[in-house]
Amino acid sequence: MIIVLKPEATQSDLEHILKRIEEWGLRPHVSRGEHRTIVGVIGDEQKLQAQPLAALPGVEQVLPILKPFKLASREFKKSDTVIQVGRVRIGGGSLAMIAGPCAVENYEILDTIAAAVKAAGANILRGGAFKPRTSPYSFQGLGEVGLRILHDIGQKYDMPVVTEVMDPRQVELVNRYADMFQIGARNMQNFDLLREVGRTQKPVLLKRGMSATVKDLLLSAEYILSEGNQQVVLCERGVRTFEDSTRNTLDLSAVPNVKGQSHLPIIVDPSHATGRPDLIPSMARAAVAAGADGVHIEVHCAPEKALSDGPQALLPSQYAELMRELRRLAELLGKVIS
Amino acid sequence: MIIVLKPEATQSDLEHILKRIEEWGLRPHVSRGEHRTIVGVIGDEQKLQAQPLAALPGVEQVLPILKPFKLASREFKKSDTVIQVGRVRIGGGSLAMIAGPCAVENYEILDTIAAAVKAAGANILRGGAFKPRTSPYSFQGLGEVGLRILHDIGQKYDMPVVTEVMDPRQVELVNRYADMFQIGARNMQNFDLLREVGRTQKPVLLKRGMSATVKDLLLSAEYILSEGNQQVVLCERGVRTFEDSTRNTLDLSAVPNVKGQSHLPIIVDPSHATGRPDLIPSMARAAVAAGADGVHIEVHCAPEKALSDGPQALLPSQYAELMRELRRLAELLGKVIS
Amino acid sequence: MIIVLKPEATQSDLEHILKRIEEWGLRPHVSRGEHRTIVGVIGDEQKLQAQPLAALPGVEQVLPILKPFKLASREFKKSDTVIQVGRVRIGGGSLAMIAGPCAVENYEILDTIAAAVKAAGANILRGGAFKPRTSPYSFQGLGEVGLRILHDIGQKYDMPVVTEVMDPRQVELVNRYADMFQIGARNMQNFDLLREVGRTQKPVLLKRGMSATVKDLLLSAEYILSEGNQQVVLCERGVRTFEDSTRNTLDLSAVPNVKGQSHLPIIVDPSHATGRPDLIPSMARAAVAAGADGVHIEVHCAPEKALSDGPQALLPSQYAELMRELRRLAELLGKVIS
Amino acid sequence: MIIVLKPEATQSDLEHILKRIEEWGLRPHVSRGEHRTIVGVIGDEQKLQAQPLAALPGVEQVLPILKPFKLASREFKKSDTVIQVGRVRIGGGSLAMIAGPCAVENYEILDTIAAAVKAAGANILRGGAFKPRTSPYSFQGLGEVGLRILHDIGQKYDMPVVTEVMDPRQVELVNRYADMFQIGARNMQNFDLLREVGRTQKPVLLKRGMSATVKDLLLSAEYILSEGNQQVVLCERGVRTFEDSTRNTLDLSAVPNVKGQSHLPIIVDPSHATGRPDLIPSMARAAVAAGADGVHIEVHCAPEKALSDGPQALLPSQYAELMRELRRLAELLGKVIS
Repeated sequence: MIIVLKPEATQSDLEHILKRIEEWGLRPHVSRGEHRTIVGVIGDEQKLQAQPLAALPGVEQVLPILKPFKLASREFKKSDTVIQVGRVRIGGGSLAMIAGPCAVENYEILDTIAAAVKAAGANILRGGAFKPRTSPYSFQGLGEVGLRILHDIGQKYDMPVVTEVMDPRQVELVNRYADMFQIGARNMQNFDLLREVGRTQKPVLLKRGMSATVKDLLLSAEYILSEGNQQVVLCERGVRTFEDSTRNTLDLSAVPNVKGQSHLPIIVDPSHATGRPDLIPSMARAAVAAGADGVHIEVHCAPEKALSDGPQALLPSQYAELMRELRRLAELLGKVIS
Repeated sequence: MIIVLKPEATQSDLEHILKRIEEWGLRPHVSRGEHRTIVGVIGDEQKLQAQPLAALPGVEQVLPILKPFKLASREFKKSDTVIQVGRVRIGGGSLAMIAGPCAVENYEILDTIAAAVKAAGANILRGGAFKPRTSPYSFQGLGEVGLRILHDIGQKYDMPVVTEVMDPRQVELVNRYADMFQIGARNMQNFDLLREVGRTQKPVLLKRGMSATVKDLLLSAEYILSEGNQQVVLCERGVRTFEDSTRNTLDLSAVPNVKGQSHLPIIVDPSHATGRPDLIPSMARAAVAAGADGVHIEVHCAPEKALSDGPQALLPSQYAELMRELRRLAELLGKVIS
Repeated sequence: MIIVLKPEATQSDLEHILKRIEEWGLRPHVSRGEHRTIVGVIGDEQKLQAQPLAALPGVEQVLPILKPFKLASREFKKSDTVIQVGRVRIGGGSLAMIAGPCAVENYEILDTIAAAVKAAGANILRGGAFKPRTSPYSFQGLGEVGLRILHDIGQKYDMPVVTEVMDPRQVELVNRYADMFQIGARNMQNFDLLREVGRTQKPVLLKRGMSATVKDLLLSAEYILSEGNQQVVLCERGVRTFEDSTRNTLDLSAVPNVKGQSHLPIIVDPSHATGRPDLIPSMARAAVAAGADGVHIEVHCAPEKALSDGPQALLPSQYAELMRELRRLAELLGKVIS
Repeated sequence: MIIVLKPEATQSDLEHILKRIEEWGLRPHVSRGEHRTIVGVIGDEQKLQAQPLAALPGVEQVLPILKPFKLASREFKKSDTVIQVGRVRIGGGSLAMIAGPCAVENYEILDTIAAAVKAAGANILRGGAFKPRTSPYSFQGLGEVGLRILHDIGQKYDMPVVTEVMDPRQVELVNRYADMFQIGARNMQNFDLLREVGRTQKPVLLKRGMSATVKDLLLSAEYILSEGNQQVVLCERGVRTFEDSTRNTLDLSAVPNVKGQSHLPIIVDPSHATGRPDLIPSMARAAVAAGADGVHIEVHCAPEKALSDGPQALLPSQYAELMRELRRLAELLGKVIS
């Protein structure tokens, strides 16, 4: 931690700061420059990050030097973490191909879609039973009925299933039916929910919030890890910008950016990021080329009848075509789709 | 709702669209232009908003005409809603002056701060017992102990109290101690939580999410209203932009923007928006001048020792000075601080 | 300047860095912490800012301590700069009330508008002769004919005039007719243009770019100041965000933010920022309350016939009403409209 | 164009609107819905786009239906445009591999870099002679001396050269030395400069502004095309967002987004977008996988001594490694690097 003093800071401001630092059991180190005096702090920076140093009189700015997350960091664990969801491995060269409809609507539709994505090569089935919808008047999901359908069809096609959990009170219920929890973008900083899934031992797919930095995303992962659950897969799904011709702006640089700082796997969701089927295949290819550990794609057999986000779903035939391309790309890059 | 067809859309695409619209019980209206055919839809647009029209073959774009919220809209209720929190009125010319520390730390500190802000003219006391912190290693609040302290000190100084609720499971508990719920920015789209406070009859202070549009904010209010609780006060507290010298960018235009579209009161929180005490007084004055129904300011008697967000708190003396300015401004504008 | 080394940086990396710093005539200062080694650099930081320190082997990050601008800074000049445009003073408690149409369309229209805004209390007349339009098919301005009309009507009503210059080749021409140059948001980083107006001795109204930080704005001002022209007035006019119900998002915190760092005056343009006449009056009031040194408002006598940006113009009667409010507000705050 | 009337619009408002539309030589078409009356306008929408329809009394909103650009649009020209720069083809399956230092510093350094990138497979050499620098105190480029060095070294290695032009007065000079003009992000809406290069017959590399939408970028291309120069290559180089761990946020979805709407080629610049050599190779691979017509990479033989943007440059050896990967990827996708 570096504390930069204001040009007008007095000697007694400085002494007050030094005293404080020593009270916290740390060692200060003063450098007097031509224009500014700075104080370096030696010792456990984590202790300091919780302190309101910027409020001390005479302080101009406080510059942290260490990252604020620990368990999620590459410094803490050098090798790539590989997450196992059923028999599917995510990370370390193995790609998750997650596909399915936005929402579970009924048994027949999900059955049709699951058969198609399985045949195309998907290895994890997705489908929402609890839907976070911007408007209270939109379809909100089938709840437990949807969870049961998802679970049964996953069994039928031998695919592990992932579904969103929105409320800490649903964690136990969802845990009974799903192989992987999804935390949606709107809940990335729902800290009570993060803690609750952190207390299970089931893999969690944690989606980046629409205005979350990469650091925020890793801090949210830290919430789950710090409760004891080490099974976290991150997901880039677009951030909000001024560009209005796509739903969000997919930040693919988050993929190598996360991989440099963290050992956790990261996948990409081009469906929610773009909201446009004409852009999804290009962005899925780009994601794999950027080094993502998988892609998450919405597929629906009748997008015009879907109860949620139909317009952004690929048709099964489009998905099959995309999977052919992704397989060749994965092979070129030395990756495996299990 | 206006449906614009692609230039290459066929006659059978058009017929399919018309058939669909009629199935939903609505009347289509076709106009053929030089470059595009468009279909206007007459009838209850709300029915259509949930439909995946953009996924129909031949559709280029879908342009909604009505706003997606209803109970929150000015069309639904013309006159300004006034919310009563204890004896304090918010809206319709009455200003809420909410002040207090970020977190309740202990009885003595809150007592000191409450005495000071009460003397300065604040009419509602704030303080967090459950703190949504980006890092799991930061202070997370005192929980029920904090709620009790807040409640007791509110009684002592005859001020209603507002505090954040983060988890649907806490709603009952918080309801016992607080006069107003606060939904924080990170939970603006925590829809289960919105529904839960919507089932109480207690006023709710709903903060705008960091990447939420004004429309999103009003849709979140709609969640609460549609459960039966009509007591919603909105709060602008800054949005995320590229500007990095302030914590967020305060969007004061949200104040008249909301007032044009909705009957609900809206207040402004310059403390979280800027994160900088040197900017807070100017932004508080600007908020009142822009027509806000109140301001929400963090005050701490010893910012350098605060357990949460100390660096952004005003000192009691700074708050008193600001309140003198705000009172004169309110008077000039014909507003009342109750 | 603080240089933070990677945990894996070697002794020879460190020696290489120290040697480099000494070659630049500066003194390094090494602190070894528990997790990181840092190097403080003492001496003229300006020299270092141009150096690619981050590319040195072993460097994790480089943290600047001083601001990158000098002539524009409050450290360089403590007292507020007051700019004189004709007989109008801007800054130091005097407010500029700039008003007029987006574009000069013809003599009669400008004459009508100028008479109205003068009567309402505006003290500077604006009007564009060269218009930067997003589309090449939109009206591009009258050029020199427009400049002459603007100049003549300014004389007639005894108001100094401000108009945009877009091209370094126009500076001489515009200089002949206008009392103040305007640099538009799209040209805030057109550095050749900044230098060219910096070589004149005429006041410059420098608008913030749509994605410029406050620091970028002050650096652009520095370009003008460093050429010898000290007459710069800054203008906040909104930045681009995800909010799509307003044209841009007005960042009023830029007003106190600039005033803390710089001695230059800053005014606010709510017309371009919001693009909505229903929001302009509130934002103009808020700007004055935030401490702005003036407001810049588009006024047109027949917005529906304006050749440029008609829908965002106030009518003369709306402007007169707004000026009545702003005068009372200025008086309350101890400011003068000259 | 669709005009939506306010619920309170009167019959005389409607008649006034219809009269106006007919005056412009267009045909209105009225639909009365349950909640709103709408007016469709049939005929040349381009005429209307310049009109201030939103300022007409009784109008709630105006919804354009056609895109505001024409010559740049896919509707105007169905097949992909291929741009020829010297013997290098860009577009239609041929990839531009543009590489070189940020700035031309002297003959020897550029010679070393050019030899290396040529050997690695680059086909166009870049280097700046005029540098748009945020700070007036940074290195501003060698001017004509730099242009001559760039030209001579391009000849020596048989590579066409591209360099930035910042000022309309430099167009003639740069035209003498360069094979392709570059318009930088800060000048994307410097309309006089766009027109000036539009009057030459030399290819133009047009970079997207940091806060420009894809539509804005295509409108800027339209400025060049409408002057008669059809040789425009677009370049995505990142937009400004709240993410602060990268210089900008690379918006790769702009690649398929542009290709859907326009016939012009588009390349990607991951160097400026990320500002981080550790992210550049992943983003270059992703760009090619997304369908970009080339990549633009900064390479420097001694980044720590570069006079401009050294920290973001790849070393020649890193570039050579990247080119090996890009060649294999291009081959897989059926693309050619000429």
